[in-house]
Amino acid sequence: MSFIYLFRHGIAQDREAFADDRQRPLTAHGKEKTRTVAQALHNLGLEGNLILTSPLLRAQQTAEILADCCNHIPIEVVDWLAPEGSFAEWETWFDRHKHLNSLFLVGHEPDLSMWAELMTWGQVSGNVLLKKAGMIGLISDPDKPLKGNCIMFLLVPPKILQDLR
Amino acid sequence: MSFIYLFRHGIAQDREAFADDRQRPLTAHGKEKTRTVAQALHNLGLEGNLILTSPLLRAQQTAEILADCCNHIPIEVVDWLAPEGSFAEWETWFDRHKHLNSLFLVGHEPDLSMWAELMTWGQVSGNVLLKKAGMIGLISDPDKPLKGNCIMFLLVPPKILQDLR
Repeated sequence: MSFIYLFRHGIAQDREAFADDRQRPLTAHGKEKTRTVAQALHNLGLEGNLILTSPLLRAQQTAEILADCCNHIPIEVVDWLAPEGSFAEWETWFDRHKHLNSLFLVGHEPDLSMWAELMTWGQVSGNVLLKKAGMIGLISDPDKPLKGNCIMFLLVPPKILQDLR
Repeated sequence: MSFIYLFRHGIAQDREAFADDRQRPLTAHGKEKTRTVAQALHNLGLEGNLILTSPLLRAQQTAEILADCCNHIPIEVVDWLAPEGSFAEWETWFDRHKHLNSLFLVGHEPDLSMWAELMTWGQVSGNVLLKKAGMIGLISDPDKPLKGNCIMFLLVPPKILQDLR
């Protein structure tokens, strides 16, 4: 059984100001909000063996803040978490790492909420709302394929996590 | 647009001690935990126009605590929220009350998580975990049927809500 946490990157700078969308950093406010959320996750006792992140700057910065607040969990950059990423590659990756107890995936919308739907229901409606610096928590069944067999137990906007003691 | 909050009753006394399951009250700990969660919801600024509750004692007690902490929202007892309740009756009820801005439904599992699935995906997998005194938040679209057209934006166990400031 693994806990899988899908974490959306924090608020980033405007698209207009950056010729390369991959280089957009988090805003100062985005960094601060992400740090408050990450600190709350640490206080909740959430632990991770590994953070996988999209290679885009705003996701990598989010992953670094998360690692910084949560016992310096190691970070691994994977191309299949970039926007319009590959669920199939994630399935293959997970199949080789089922022994991990707890895992963060830092990435983008609409991919993350769609992946959560695929893991929980096996199909996508587009009816799950994941805000920036928000998180979805799933539990996988080691004896079954990821698709359609995970339990969704958490869906939280940053507003709630920010207010945690 | 309406906010629909599905709230599961708190921890109740053991089944063995009560000949009539409908009369099982919340335990002292269940009451306290439910009150902490209800207070947190109030602090979050969550408001409701109405609380609909299952007629079973543990649900009614939960609804009363919720009302008590959240500006004394009025409570209405409805039979279709009892265990093995009627989603069709809920659809009919909601169709006549679409003007309500925000609504709590206090009831039982597996009904509530199944209804959340029906509203979000139009079908049920049984893969959503709603703990006692936990909550699911949905947004309905006034121009579409409830089934398969709601947005799920919140799924929180009491552990998280209890820790809110």
